Amino acid sequence: MPEYHADLPLVDLVRRLPSNVPFVGPEALERQRGRAFRVRAGANESSFGISPAVRAAMTAALDNVHCYNDPEGYELRCALAAKHGVDVAEIALGSGIDDLLGLFVRAFAGPGDCAVTSLGAYPTFNYHVAGYGSELKTVPYRDNHEDAPALLDAAASAGASLLYLANPDNPMGTWQRQETLTVLMASIPAHCVLLLDEAYVDLAPPADIPPLDPSNPRVVRLRTFSKVYGMAGSRIGYAIAHRDIVAMLDKIRNHFGVNRIAQSGALAALQDIEFVQDVVRQVAVGRDEYASAAADVGLRAIPSATNFVALDAGSSERAEALMAALLGRDIFVRKPSLAPLDRCVRITVVLPEERKVVIEALRAALRS
Amino acid sequence: MPEYHADLPLVDLVRRLPSNVPFVGPEALERQRGRAFRVRAGANESSFGISPAVRAAMTAALDNVHCYNDPEGYELRCALAAKHGVDVAEIALGSGIDDLLGLFVRAFAGPGDCAVTSLGAYPTFNYHVAGYGSELKTVPYRDNHEDAPALLDAAASAGASLLYLANPDNPMGTWQRQETLTVLMASIPAHCVLLLDEAYVDLAPPADIPPLDPSNPRVVRLRTFSKVYGMAGSRIGYAIAHRDIVAMLDKIRNHFGVNRIAQSGALAALQDIEFVQDVVRQVAVGRDEYASAAADVGLRAIPSATNFVALDAGSSERAEALMAALLGRDIFVRKPSLAPLDRCVRITVVLPEERKVVIEALRAALRS
Repeated sequence: MPEYHADLPLVDLVRRLPSNVPFVGPEALERQRGRAFRVRAGANESSFGISPAVRAAMTAALDNVHCYNDPEGYELRCALAAKHGVDVAEIALGSGIDDLLGLFVRAFAGPGDCAVTSLGAYPTFNYHVAGYGSELKTVPYRDNHEDAPALLDAAASAGASLLYLANPDNPMGTWQRQETLTVLMASIPAHCVLLLDEAYVDLAPPADIPPLDPSNPRVVRLRTFSKVYGMAGSRIGYAIAHRDIVAMLDKIRNHFGVNRIAQSGALAALQDIEFVQDVVRQVAVGRDEYASAAADVGLRAIPSATNFVALDAGSSERAEALMAALLGRDIFVRKPSLAPLDRCVRITVVLPEERKVVIEALRAALRS
Repeated sequence: MPEYHADLPLVDLVRRLPSNVPFVGPEALERQRGRAFRVRAGANESSFGISPAVRAAMTAALDNVHCYNDPEGYELRCALAAKHGVDVAEIALGSGIDDLLGLFVRAFAGPGDCAVTSLGAYPTFNYHVAGYGSELKTVPYRDNHEDAPALLDAAASAGASLLYLANPDNPMGTWQRQETLTVLMASIPAHCVLLLDEAYVDLAPPADIPPLDPSNPRVVRLRTFSKVYGMAGSRIGYAIAHRDIVAMLDKIRNHFGVNRIAQSGALAALQDIEFVQDVVRQVAVGRDEYASAAADVGLRAIPSATNFVALDAGSSERAEALMAALLGRDIFVRKPSLAPLDRCVRITVVLPEERKVVIEALRAALRS
């Protein structure tokens, strides 16, 4: 437990929080190493960037960046509602899914409550659960997938108020069949909310994505502009949720938190469907390339519905060595730290010329 | 108290929160009116915009907007530390002062705690105090100023853990003498933190701004790029605080919350000192213009060290009528809603050609 100046009136919960952060950024690693990365393949950023239309909209937004953004994000929420066939009152904006996760944990899981997630899943959810004082229960992955039935059982038996599931999953890249999710969503207990993190949904087989139903107050769908839209650094995501949940967020959210440039860019991004389709195609090509290259060097690429591939190195030690070799060749990658996921290294699908560098480094690492 | 779907597992505190927001944005008013504003003079935005250097930096940042921002904001924090002559460990970034206020309330003022502010001061602080379940105590303004000694007395006698003071003040535009603040800062009780909101500090007489001393854990200085730097829509602010406070924020903040474009713009903004100096000069000219125009029509402009002027209409009713007349002429302004501040209308110093429109509207309103 960190020590603080004795004069500080810290609330007990915050005083007791451990000193860890969800992610150490590649910039911090570069500062530690004293050397820049050649390829950023560790944070599942979209190397394909933003569309020209988004760039134009964001550039135009600079003309009015001295003005606060619309705190209601009304125009963008209307566009999202139209895209998804829901009501504008069923859309909430946040400065990324991270922001929304924090708000949902704050609203639904305080001290005395319990939240359920998979062991080794997205650490920022766990960070917020700790930060708001609720208890975290974890369920192991099963065959590289989040184990939906076991998560449901855990939530029900613990009386959890929150259940977190990413589909497609990060860090493994796997995804659930629609039937599995349909059963899950129909079975969430009353007084429990499923946070279905769909950051990578655009990269998944459409037939496996269950239809939206914001009339169900037990399921929140979380989406982002950080992946296929290429807007990670602008911080914007949204929730599709029951209107009472959206209304509730208005009582706790940072009303001016979603910046003007992100809102303008997102509005333009929704209109440039071809750009996103092209990114989805290019990512699929890149995943196949990684899978072939992995097979060539005796690694298994776990089938992915995301913009990254988890390469199974067979053991934690081998994965650690592989990651070290890639970092040593100035390629930023990450790996899961908990068993049994920790036998994998997670590599983002970057641009074709960057992938050559990654694949060459993989070959060299496996030779040595 | 709003009604929610019975299935939602809301924590009691959130369930009981009232349905109000800190500010209704001008965009929402435009939607209600069905007509756009000609002049935005109600949110103290800087009509002078961003400097060309900031625009260039933000435009360049779009090249990498597909990458997450540095969650440590290291480069910008180093530049801020150099500017202020403090250590980088004494600088914390947030997506605007609003974000930081929320974090400080969360850390320092939970249920059972008490926070002190002036009656009619910045509503977003009050919003966070309610949101985190602490009790708010208010102290009346005195002669259009926040009453520093009375605030201190109230904080001491209530055993408050937070004391909020804006200097220069919003919505009145007045400011404290350095001696007053020096006494206040030296007298904050142990287990109380003064949040000194200095959003408008660049527009105040430099001699009245007390020196920074982040070795004092009882005082946090809050600054922003939203005012003279013209970056309100990009959402970035910072705190200068004791290093234990900065370290504590790392345990609760949204680590990727300060977007890449804002960080790049802010870094460039710090280097373009002449631009800011010019904005400060232009704002002073505009304040004088408003004061003269007000005197001509029989209103008193309260002396201001900000980019707005509170015009004293003599009574709440007259101020209400004046604001309605300005809104009716498509000029967005706001007014304080609580006595005795509510006899004023608050008008932002906008561009010279916009000020002509405002002043003409003032004259017309006072004639009728």
